[in-house]
Amino acid sequence: MPEDIEKANELSAKKSEFSNWYSQALQVAEIIDKRYNVKGMNVWMPYGYSIMMAIKKFWDDLFQKDGIKEMYFPLIVPLEYCEQNESWWEGFKNEAFWVKGLEEKKATHILRPTGEPAMYPMFSIWIRSSNNLPFRIYETVSSFRYETSHTRPLIRDREITVWHEIHTAHESKEDAEDEAKKHEGFYDEIWEFLALPSIKVRKPQWEVFPGAVGAIEYYSLMPTGRVMENGSINNLGQAYAKKFNIKFKNEKGKEDFVWQICTGNGARLLAGVIAVHGDDRGLVLPPNIAPIQAVIVPIYSKKDMDKVIKECENVKKELEKECVRVHLDLRKEFPGSKFYDWEIKGVPLRIEIGSRDISQKQVTVVRRDTLSKEAILNNELKKIRTLLDQIQNDLLKKAQENLDKHTKTAAMKTELEKKIKGNLVKVGWCGSGDCWDNIKEIAEGVELFGADLKQKKGTCIICGKVSNEVGYVARTY
Amino acid sequence: MPEDIEKANELSAKKSEFSNWYSQALQVAEIIDKRYNVKGMNVWMPYGYSIMMAIKKFWDDLFQKDGIKEMYFPLIVPLEYCEQNESWWEGFKNEAFWVKGLEEKKATHILRPTGEPAMYPMFSIWIRSSNNLPFRIYETVSSFRYETSHTRPLIRDREITVWHEIHTAHESKEDAEDEAKKHEGFYDEIWEFLALPSIKVRKPQWEVFPGAVGAIEYYSLMPTGRVMENGSINNLGQAYAKKFNIKFKNEKGKEDFVWQICTGNGARLLAGVIAVHGDDRGLVLPPNIAPIQAVIVPIYSKKDMDKVIKECENVKKELEKECVRVHLDLRKEFPGSKFYDWEIKGVPLRIEIGSRDISQKQVTVVRRDTLSKEAILNNELKKIRTLLDQIQNDLLKKAQENLDKHTKTAAMKTELEKKIKGNLVKVGWCGSGDCWDNIKEIAEGVELFGADLKQKKGTCIICGKVSNEVGYVARTY
Repeated sequence: MPEDIEKANELSAKKSEFSNWYSQALQVAEIIDKRYNVKGMNVWMPYGYSIMMAIKKFWDDLFQKDGIKEMYFPLIVPLEYCEQNESWWEGFKNEAFWVKGLEEKKATHILRPTGEPAMYPMFSIWIRSSNNLPFRIYETVSSFRYETSHTRPLIRDREITVWHEIHTAHESKEDAEDEAKKHEGFYDEIWEFLALPSIKVRKPQWEVFPGAVGAIEYYSLMPTGRVMENGSINNLGQAYAKKFNIKFKNEKGKEDFVWQICTGNGARLLAGVIAVHGDDRGLVLPPNIAPIQAVIVPIYSKKDMDKVIKECENVKKELEKECVRVHLDLRKEFPGSKFYDWEIKGVPLRIEIGSRDISQKQVTVVRRDTLSKEAILNNELKKIRTLLDQIQNDLLKKAQENLDKHTKTAAMKTELEKKIKGNLVKVGWCGSGDCWDNIKEIAEGVELFGADLKQKKGTCIICGKVSNEVGYVARTY
Repeated sequence: MPEDIEKANELSAKKSEFSNWYSQALQVAEIIDKRYNVKGMNVWMPYGYSIMMAIKKFWDDLFQKDGIKEMYFPLIVPLEYCEQNESWWEGFKNEAFWVKGLEEKKATHILRPTGEPAMYPMFSIWIRSSNNLPFRIYETVSSFRYETSHTRPLIRDREITVWHEIHTAHESKEDAEDEAKKHEGFYDEIWEFLALPSIKVRKPQWEVFPGAVGAIEYYSLMPTGRVMENGSINNLGQAYAKKFNIKFKNEKGKEDFVWQICTGNGARLLAGVIAVHGDDRGLVLPPNIAPIQAVIVPIYSKKDMDKVIKECENVKKELEKECVRVHLDLRKEFPGSKFYDWEIKGVPLRIEIGSRDISQKQVTVVRRDTLSKEAILNNELKKIRTLLDQIQNDLLKKAQENLDKHTKTAAMKTELEKKIKGNLVKVGWCGSGDCWDNIKEIAEGVELFGADLKQKKGTCIICGKVSNEVGYVARTY
C-alpha cells in the first residue's frame, strides 16, 4: 500500500546488521508502519495484521478447545485495584500511563500494564466455592507500559498489542501444577505451528513474582546470538490470592485461598518468526501463518496476455479448491518487480505461468525459503499443498538445527568466555544467586537467564561447587 | 459462573420496567458484570463475549469478503493529530480521557474517542495517487469517551468495546456514493443475521459532521417505544481530507483531495437484539449468534440415571454432526432449576430426555421464543437444524411485525401528540430546521430524528407548507 517507504534494496544485511534489517523489514513488508507519531506505538498494516490474526486464531482455538473461556476486562484500572498488591504496584508504578477526565484534578486510574489488577478483584467476587473451580479464562488485549528504554516494534512497545493472558485458579497446589504442565503443552503446539523452536528455562526463585512458586520462560534465539524472552508460565501459588482475597470454601466447608497460574504472550511470537526465518531479501513466512501461501505471477507479452491470464485464473481456482490461500498478481508491473515485492513479504511459493509453461501443461514454482525452482504439471497441482507442508516442516527443521548449532556447553569460565559470542551456552550452576550474578561479569549484557527443567549433576562454572542445575547463559534482549 | 448475583426471579417485567429489566438481564444472563469499579466500564463475561465475538465474526467475514482490509491503530492519539480538525476536536475535547506518563508535566495525548485523528494523518502519508484508491480499511477496537450523562452497558459506555469503524477514500464523489450504497447493503445483511429490523433515516445537513455531504443512521425500536441509534454511514465528502491533507494525483497528474466514507457500530447491535427479543424470563437469542443453540437436560431418577445420560450423550453427538452448537447440562441440579438458567440465557432450544422419551425413541424439544413443546423422533434429529432456522426466521418476522405495528403516521400535530406514546410516527416535513426544532415541543424527549430515504409529496405537520420529506418522530435514547 505505501509507495514512498524505503524499498527492499535498502534492506540491511540480516546477519551483520540485524537491528536495522529488522526495523526495515517490518516497514517494507508492511507488517507495521512506525511513522505513527507516538513513541513505542505503531500502526498494524493489513498484511501484518492478518498474519497476527492467523496466530491469534491458532491460540483462540487451542485455548477454547481446552475449555479456557475468553473474556474482556476494561483497559482502565482504578488505583485502588492496583494498590491491593503493593509489590506488583511498586514494579509497575513508574511505567504507568495515567488517565483522567478533563475536570478531574488528579489521575486516579491507569491503563493496564498487565491483567492482574483488572482481573483479580473480580475473581474475588466470582469465586466462592469448589464448584467455581477450576476457573480458567483468557483475554487478548493491549497492555500499556511507559517504557523509558529503547522501544522496538513487536518486541518492546509502549502499547503492547494483540497480547493474550491466561489466568486460572485452582483448589490445590497440585491442580495448579497440572495446569502449568498443560500450558507447556500449549507452548509446544505454538512453537510447532510457527516453526519456531524455543529455549525453555526455569527461573530461579528471586526472578519470579514475589510470593510465587515458580516460573517457566521461553526464549527465541535471535540472529545476533542474543536471546529474546518469548512467553512465560507463572505459578503464582497463593501469593496473589492472598493480596486480592480470592478465597473458596472446599467441600468440607473450610475456607482457603486459590492457587493460581498465569501465562502471557503476543506479538513477540511474530517478531521471533520474522527474526529467525527472514533473509537478506526480506521475510520468509511459514505457510501456516502466511496470508498468501502462493502468489501467481503471469509472464506475458502483449500478444499472449489474454491466454496467459486466463490460464492463471484457472490455476488459481484449482488451488483454491485445494484450500491454498492464493493470490493472482495482475498489477501492471514487470514480473521481476513483482517477484521482488512478494519475496520481501515472505510469500512461501511463487507460481510463474507463461506461454512456455502453458504449452508444456505445467507451472513453474519457486520456493521462498530455498529459492529453488521446479515445474509442476497442471494435472498434479495437488502437489502444491504438499509442497507447502514440506516448507513448513523444513523451516522448523532448519531453525532447530540452527538453534542446536548455536547451543554450546562450557565446563570452565574461560571456555564460556570463548564460546559466548553469538551462542547460547549451557553451564553447570550451583543454583546460588551469587554465581548467578557473577556470570554477568563475563561480558556486557551476558547473563545466566534460567536453568534447564531437567537437573543434571556437575560442577558450578563459577564457584566450582557440586551443582545440580544446568544454567543457560547468553546475551539477552 | 457467578453464584451470588441476583437471580432471574428478581427480573423486572420487561414491558413496564424496561430499564431495570435490561440492566438485570445483562447481569443474570452473564453478558457483562457491572461490578467493575469504573463508571461506564464493564467486564464482558465469557457467555456475553462469545455472543459478541459471533457478531464480530459475521462483520469480519462480510467486510473482508468485499476486500475491506483489517488494520489496527494505536489507542493513544497525540494532541497534534486531534487539532488538525478543530471542529472535530471542539466536539470531543471535553469528553476526552487524557493520558500521561508519571514524569510528564502536562498530558499531550488522549485515548481515541473516534478513529479519525488516529487514522487520517496516516492516510495522508499512504495515499499518493489513483493507484492507491479506493482505499478501504476497518478496525475493531475500543473507543473512550468521558461521558458525563448516565451510562448504560453496551449502549452508552465510557469504554466503548468491540467497536468497528470502516474508513474508505475515493477518487470522486460518485465513487464515494457508490461505496455508501454498498454499506447500506452490509447493514441489510447485518439486520437479517441478527433478526433485528431497523429504521433507516437520512440526517439533515445540520446534523452531519461539519463539511460532510450527508449521513444515514439506523435506529432500533426499543420496548419502551423509544428509538436507539444503532449505526451510521457518513459521507464525509472532502471535509476531512482537507483538514488532514489527504491528497492524490489523478491519472492526468492533477492533485485533488480524496472523498471519504466512514461507518461504525459495535455492541449496540447486541443491545438491540437483547432489548427487542427478550421477555420476562430473560434473553431470547437468535440461533445465528447463540453460543449454545440447543441445551440437553437429562431427566432422571437414581435408578435410570446412567441410561438417560448415555442417551443424552448419543443425541449430543448426533446434533454435533448436524453442526448444532449443543451443550449437555450434567450439573447436579433439579431439571427445573436448569430450565430456568438456560431460559435466562436465551438458549433457542431445550431438549429434555427422560426414560419415557427413550422408550418412545424421541426427545422433547422446547422453543425458547414460543415456549412450545414438541416431540422429535430420534431418527429425525435433523429436524432440529430446521427448527433453528425456523426460530431465526420467526424472530425476524415477529420483530418486523412489532416495528410495523408501532410505526404510525400522523397528518396533524394533534394526531402526532396522540400517537407518539410508545410509537414511532411518520409525518410530513418541509425540511426546515425551524420545523425540526419545533417538533421537540410536542413532549419531553420527542424529536424528529431523520427523514425517509424516499421522498414523498405532502404537507409539513408543523408549518403546513408543501413538503417532500417524510420525517420520523419518536422519543430517542
